[in-house]
Amino acid sequence: MATIGASIEDISQGAVTLASDIRPTCTQQHGFGHAGLTFSLGDSAAGYAALSVMPPEAEVLTTEMKINLLAPAKGSRLRAVGRVIKPGRRLVITQADVYAIDERGTETHIALLTGSMIPLLP
Amino acid sequence: MATIGASIEDISQGAVTLASDIRPTCTQQHGFGHAGLTFSLGDSAAGYAALSVMPPEAEVLTTEMKINLLAPAKGSRLRAVGRVIKPGRRLVITQADVYAIDERGTETHIALLTGSMIPLLP
Amino acid sequence: MATIGASIEDISQGAVTLASDIRPTCTQQHGFGHAGLTFSLGDSAAGYAALSVMPPEAEVLTTEMKINLLAPAKGSRLRAVGRVIKPGRRLVITQADVYAIDERGTETHIALLTGSMIPLLP
Amino acid sequence: MATIGASIEDISQGAVTLASDIRPTCTQQHGFGHAGLTFSLGDSAAGYAALSVMPPEAEVLTTEMKINLLAPAKGSRLRAVGRVIKPGRRLVITQADVYAIDERGTETHIALLTGSMIPLLP
Repeated sequence: MATIGASIEDISQGAVTLASDIRPTCTQQHGFGHAGLTFSLGDSAAGYAALSVMPPEAEVLTTEMKINLLAPAKGSRLRAVGRVIKPGRRLVITQADVYAIDERGTETHIALLTGSMIPLLP
Repeated sequence: MATIGASIEDISQGAVTLASDIRPTCTQQHGFGHAGLTFSLGDSAAGYAALSVMPPEAEVLTTEMKINLLAPAKGSRLRAVGRVIKPGRRLVITQADVYAIDERGTETHIALLTGSMIPLLP
Repeated sequence: MATIGASIEDISQGAVTLASDIRPTCTQQHGFGHAGLTFSLGDSAAGYAALSVMPPEAEVLTTEMKINLLAPAKGSRLRAVGRVIKPGRRLVITQADVYAIDERGTETHIALLTGSMIPLLP
Repeated sequence: MATIGASIEDISQGAVTLASDIRPTCTQQHGFGHAGLTFSLGDSAAGYAALSVMPPEAEVLTTEMKINLLAPAKGSRLRAVGRVIKPGRRLVITQADVYAIDERGTETHIALLTGSMIPLLP
């Protein structure tokens, strides 16, 4: 979270929204945010969503995550909405949508992630 | 590449090896490299492998990438080997394996990525 | 469609619902519908959804599809809802949810698919 | 296995080869084997590979599987080679390659699958 400068915008049971600036150090050759940044924010939102349905001291570990990139990360800010598709003791199946926000506040859906989290209970 | 401090170790027709230090800023709560770093390095290795079978001025765009995380990114350095599974005019299908290397040089296979690249020809 | 006995339940712009009986020949060792059946129905629903946003004579080809299996295909019937996440000239990104329906009409969400379709225009 | 007429061609520790005829009932609009057949054979080969590294009475359940389709399933027969990428108590990560074989015995690599299996121990 700190590495990519992400912050939590919203938390509810099974859904978490994160946001992050697109820093100049995280852009690729065309000046857009790179796929790794989009992946990191989406994966984090999915992970926090998984945590939101678990006991406070639990942790989660991503075991697999697929990202479909829909549009370039063009703008100044990213927003990721993670949610739980199916909770479980062995695996929590999650999804996240990532949006790029430009200077005028227009949002573009830039990525869809689906993945599995392993719950780690103390 | 610059953001994660990656460098090219080896290039051949259809296969590229990248390496990167696990910087303290790219570790997660347990001191391991975070999934976003592993994804970025593997995705980059897959992308460079795709470029290696294309004309010099071509570019590639990841359209989808799945990562299976196999073990924690424990160590001081990551190495990613990307290769082309199937070249194509519309899509290049690629794969990458990522390894963590500890202080004693021991390598652990930590991730497997498979994905599709869109070739952009000038 | 004929192989798995599927039929179209609903079509709108960007969304298609298919249904199929769980035939005894398509069950696995525990008497549940096997993953291949669930995949086929979900993939078909996604493909038809892609076709619904394209010219009449177009065809689509799945280039990649990921399925997350959420619960066993327990019941007598499957229903798959495919929808377009992002249309495109090169690729159409799609998603499908598959539900199992038991004798009492109870629906269980059993699978989530996300994938990419290549449009083939005549 | 019976539904798609698959048989085991080879088993070793961590790798299993299955084969199946492309029956007329399993072809799509162009006369090629449909994606569901390719998926089923690849998924089964991956599952058997997972079983090959587990105790005899164990079972496995696919939790997620991604397929990249590389070429049409053109020919009379399919062959799938599944192998274990990483065994585990919670999850077994597997991969499978599927080949189509035509009348002259020429093999074409038509699909790459990567997925996760949940071990079920008695």
